[in-house]
Amino acid sequence: MASAFQKHQFTILLLSCQLIFITLYGLFGKYSVDSMPGGSETSTIAVLYPMFQDTHVMIFIGFGFLMTFLKRYGFSAVSVNLLLASFTIEWSIIVNGFLSEEFAKEGKFSVGVAELLSGDFTAAIILISMGAMLGKLSPTQYIIMALIETPVSLFVEHHVIHTFHVNDVGDSIVVHAFGAYFGLACARAFADDKQREHDNEGSVYHSDIYAMIGAIFLWVFWPSFNAAVAEPAEAQQRAICNTVLSLVACTVTTFIVSQAVDHHKKFDMVHIANSTLAGGVAIGTTANMVLNPMHALTVGVLAGTLSVVGYKYITPFLASKLKIHDTCGVNNLHGMPGILAGVSSAMFLFLYDPADYGKSLNYIFPAMKSDTNENGISAGAQAMNQLIGLSLVLVSSTISGLLTGFLLKLKVFNQVRQPELYADGDYFETPADYDFTSRIVSHIDRVEINEYSKLTQKEI
Amino acid sequence: MASAFQKHQFTILLLSCQLIFITLYGLFGKYSVDSMPGGSETSTIAVLYPMFQDTHVMIFIGFGFLMTFLKRYGFSAVSVNLLLASFTIEWSIIVNGFLSEEFAKEGKFSVGVAELLSGDFTAAIILISMGAMLGKLSPTQYIIMALIETPVSLFVEHHVIHTFHVNDVGDSIVVHAFGAYFGLACARAFADDKQREHDNEGSVYHSDIYAMIGAIFLWVFWPSFNAAVAEPAEAQQRAICNTVLSLVACTVTTFIVSQAVDHHKKFDMVHIANSTLAGGVAIGTTANMVLNPMHALTVGVLAGTLSVVGYKYITPFLASKLKIHDTCGVNNLHGMPGILAGVSSAMFLFLYDPADYGKSLNYIFPAMKSDTNENGISAGAQAMNQLIGLSLVLVSSTISGLLTGFLLKLKVFNQVRQPELYADGDYFETPADYDFTSRIVSHIDRVEINEYSKLTQKEI
Amino acid sequence: MASAFQKHQFTILLLSCQLIFITLYGLFGKYSVDSMPGGSETSTIAVLYPMFQDTHVMIFIGFGFLMTFLKRYGFSAVSVNLLLASFTIEWSIIVNGFLSEEFAKEGKFSVGVAELLSGDFTAAIILISMGAMLGKLSPTQYIIMALIETPVSLFVEHHVIHTFHVNDVGDSIVVHAFGAYFGLACARAFADDKQREHDNEGSVYHSDIYAMIGAIFLWVFWPSFNAAVAEPAEAQQRAICNTVLSLVACTVTTFIVSQAVDHHKKFDMVHIANSTLAGGVAIGTTANMVLNPMHALTVGVLAGTLSVVGYKYITPFLASKLKIHDTCGVNNLHGMPGILAGVSSAMFLFLYDPADYGKSLNYIFPAMKSDTNENGISAGAQAMNQLIGLSLVLVSSTISGLLTGFLLKLKVFNQVRQPELYADGDYFETPADYDFTSRIVSHIDRVEINEYSKLTQKEI
Repeated sequence: MASAFQKHQFTILLLSCQLIFITLYGLFGKYSVDSMPGGSETSTIAVLYPMFQDTHVMIFIGFGFLMTFLKRYGFSAVSVNLLLASFTIEWSIIVNGFLSEEFAKEGKFSVGVAELLSGDFTAAIILISMGAMLGKLSPTQYIIMALIETPVSLFVEHHVIHTFHVNDVGDSIVVHAFGAYFGLACARAFADDKQREHDNEGSVYHSDIYAMIGAIFLWVFWPSFNAAVAEPAEAQQRAICNTVLSLVACTVTTFIVSQAVDHHKKFDMVHIANSTLAGGVAIGTTANMVLNPMHALTVGVLAGTLSVVGYKYITPFLASKLKIHDTCGVNNLHGMPGILAGVSSAMFLFLYDPADYGKSLNYIFPAMKSDTNENGISAGAQAMNQLIGLSLVLVSSTISGLLTGFLLKLKVFNQVRQPELYADGDYFETPADYDFTSRIVSHIDRVEINEYSKLTQKEI
Repeated sequence: MASAFQKHQFTILLLSCQLIFITLYGLFGKYSVDSMPGGSETSTIAVLYPMFQDTHVMIFIGFGFLMTFLKRYGFSAVSVNLLLASFTIEWSIIVNGFLSEEFAKEGKFSVGVAELLSGDFTAAIILISMGAMLGKLSPTQYIIMALIETPVSLFVEHHVIHTFHVNDVGDSIVVHAFGAYFGLACARAFADDKQREHDNEGSVYHSDIYAMIGAIFLWVFWPSFNAAVAEPAEAQQRAICNTVLSLVACTVTTFIVSQAVDHHKKFDMVHIANSTLAGGVAIGTTANMVLNPMHALTVGVLAGTLSVVGYKYITPFLASKLKIHDTCGVNNLHGMPGILAGVSSAMFLFLYDPADYGKSLNYIFPAMKSDTNENGISAGAQAMNQLIGLSLVLVSSTISGLLTGFLLKLKVFNQVRQPELYADGDYFETPADYDFTSRIVSHIDRVEINEYSKLTQKEI
Repeated sequence: MASAFQKHQFTILLLSCQLIFITLYGLFGKYSVDSMPGGSETSTIAVLYPMFQDTHVMIFIGFGFLMTFLKRYGFSAVSVNLLLASFTIEWSIIVNGFLSEEFAKEGKFSVGVAELLSGDFTAAIILISMGAMLGKLSPTQYIIMALIETPVSLFVEHHVIHTFHVNDVGDSIVVHAFGAYFGLACARAFADDKQREHDNEGSVYHSDIYAMIGAIFLWVFWPSFNAAVAEPAEAQQRAICNTVLSLVACTVTTFIVSQAVDHHKKFDMVHIANSTLAGGVAIGTTANMVLNPMHALTVGVLAGTLSVVGYKYITPFLASKLKIHDTCGVNNLHGMPGILAGVSSAMFLFLYDPADYGKSLNYIFPAMKSDTNENGISAGAQAMNQLIGLSLVLVSSTISGLLTGFLLKLKVFNQVRQPELYADGDYFETPADYDFTSRIVSHIDRVEINEYSKLTQKEI
């Protein structure tokens, strides 16, 4: 029998967090100046708000439905996604607030549309890690993971951006790479042989189609994710174009490689729902830097290839040899493409002349030497900073992920029972057809069922 | 046998409406000045149009898919939603036109993006009432309901806003509360014991996931619904922030309460798909008023709690004791949170000092005393007006809903046969698997079917 | 056994295209001035970008999910849609670049958000033709079709717009009619009796609901498709209003006619998912021309009627008598409504006085006589041009479609095996339940399966 604490720990934990969060907002939170009386009379969010909404769709529909591919975990995928993202928006605004200059000066932090957008970006970190742990954690454990990962990732992000002046406009380093390697490290520490080759892993025909709803909304709105905070306007417009081109090239490449590496020369829906998106990650860091359409296309080709190869060969290797079980394959969609983004950002610093950026150089690389920043650093030093930022993210995410994984293994927290790994049954009220619909396995060509039932009888 | 009139009444009714509507547009309609040659050369809808599109998605995808949760009523839910919303947009623009100052002066009414947006808001009223009646009405009856409810609700809304100067920026009083209590009253008058505990009520595994598509699109775009018509820009930006914060707090709360009230400590998808949205309704009236993030979060917490408790205890009570059968539980998503919105709007008038709003006071409460309106009313009087407006909506929706319910019961209109309640079969051509897919009930752990079929034979 | 060439032809073809495309971008492509350093410091896409994103959703979610209605072709529909659209965006930007004035002058072509939007419009052409051929082509064949159709359609479009100065703001002539009649002609040349009355044609209950996701996103965002490139602002706003009104009228009409023409007086989901959209096509060419709401409504009524009648009577006739098998019925959604759009554009030129358009006349009909274009042509001549443009599209699409169909029939290209027409199995890795889920045919009222399984045993 479950102890009273085990029975109520989710309620206690989440209720406590919620009360503390609201208290912190009460003590330190306020709306931003442009959202308060006396603020702007003309909209300051005419461009930002639609991009925020696109990002919002990516977080809640995109990530949520992409993770419904598991045949018995659809309720959990879309619901826990909603819960963790909401929780992280609340929590990350507080953490980012405490890290802000405004808080240091005035003891208050602001909330506005820009801060909500940051909340969405932070939610992406948590949801990526969730992808690696999908089906293996209880609701309590998911919340603990989000509770820990949010401040750690934001602290690292803060130093990557403000101490090392890294350009990471689409957050591929600080969001995608961090989330992926935190999740993989967590999975390693949490590993258990019973998690592998479980009957519940895998999809059914309809769940793969649900997943495409998520995949395509991510694909369509990714340009907004990468461009939302790019400045000035020309850089934002370029970030959009680079992202679209990288995505289309990545998509075409995914189909080529997916078929080429398959024994039966068939496409794999896992690649199509995931690897097609790697182009969005891989161009993220450099979406405002790349000045040539061909370069964006090339990044997309590399990302698609890397991602499909990852799903085909690296994920099984990690699972069997390194005991890193990665349910959604986040290493292939967020991890390796995130590293590609970071490394290529250093390379593009040598490929283009800083003078090519004109006045925009200040926005893209505020620390670099320019007309208005005579003591700035060289392109080589900036490239080094990009790599240092990437390394910092990789090391910190791995360490914090490992520690979190060990913590989550403690018996004091509710654990998922082995037969109910990757399954909704223990945590959600399920309809009567749940077992039938989600466990069916068959190899037939046509089913004709003509049955005489009470209802038919009555009607005849 | 059906009489010729019964067989053709849908065609006759809808065709007549369509012809009359088009004639009325021909006689009295015109495009708004800024949509006609000589009108604006720069866009007047740069901010409004994306918000209109978000709202449009809520109406057609959001409401449409949220109602597909019933296992045998998916075709009807999404299709009738599309029909009623289209019908209501046509009809409400005419009604609003006749109520407009412009029509009183010039004998013409205008159509522009703002009017289309109003059409969407009115469609929401009808679709909320449809939620209470879901599965119990024939297409003819749905149309009659929309035909009656549209002018009644718009007439009431007109007086609430223009006579009592109620601030209801996100339409929680005039849309959500009206739609809910019209629907519940209609359900009461239309009640029949056979509607309760019907085999067709309830979901299957996949239909609950469809419903989440609708739920999440409503969730994501709700800030646009509440902020679309807020003025000036700072109030609009605040309305967005308040709505997002209320929704995230409501969502976290929904998960806490849903699990806490369940015997098996499991989450209920009905709560997750519906109660998470109550925060959007509850903050609707005050989205431009609330000046403190903590207050928005608190409203969300109250809404989520109220809504889950409603689903768990109040809906069954209404159904069994008061004979009010509410298919979608609109009382918990729109009704009670709408009342909460109205009541809290009166309370916030005492919590904040009118001076806090500066020049915006004129936009939010045009009837209140300010620098430019020296004869305006006090905060207390405005609070009273908010409550009068709410009461007016509750009384008028209940009376008109009851009368409509009695009317719809008349045998002259096509009625749904008892075995086909909550089912598509009588009104839609269904594919061959319809009965199997939507009636399956099972309690098994794994199905393996290996069958030898003609096709397999041929191929071997 | 398949030859090595047959086995690898998809890889070879698509990889070659990809390498050539990237090389062409490298040689001739550059970003547009406003997306490069020194470009615009304030956004030039505040209005355009949200409309681009709406269109992007239509192309990838809208078309993709609309085509998932087939019970065994869901993976292919949504995936091939993604592949062809990505491929076409890449390819069409090159082709449009080569046709541009800029290329003629400078030997370079530009890429910016406007060009990405054109890419989406061209993708629509290909996806419409794909709808006619759905389930009958191998991946190789789909790519060849896109490879050929893209330059042909853009060449024709270029001359329709620039030589004949046709107003086709929502692309109903150059996109919808072209795509439809290319596809139908291709289907005719590719015809084979075995394509008709195939077991795999038709939907299952859930696949019809997926299709509605696509249908409704198309429906909701169609105003952006028709208005995105309309100038000036007032014409854009009018284009939005005309499209919404045409769609709502078309939708109401679809329900009336769908039920009226059915033997059992039931609605048909094929009509509801497709014919409701015909109003968007039919108003496309004239969305910036129509000045009266009643006229937009009337166009919608005609389109809905035409489309349902087409599905009911014309599609079966074409299939059985003319050997034109049109899987998605694109003739009814894009073809005939596209012709209606073209013909009505000529008629509206007589209905309105050119002076009604004021200064906007120059934008809508740049070739017509106006204050600033004294040598312009008359309204009658413009009407003739509209009809010439339409005819040009119909003739060229038919001829090029026929030739493409004959080409695709060549045995050198991979062909779909007859039993696997309209099925994923030969081209996609499918989950174990694929056959069961997608072939089930049943006529029962309730299935109760209570089975004792190993897993249950263990748990007891």
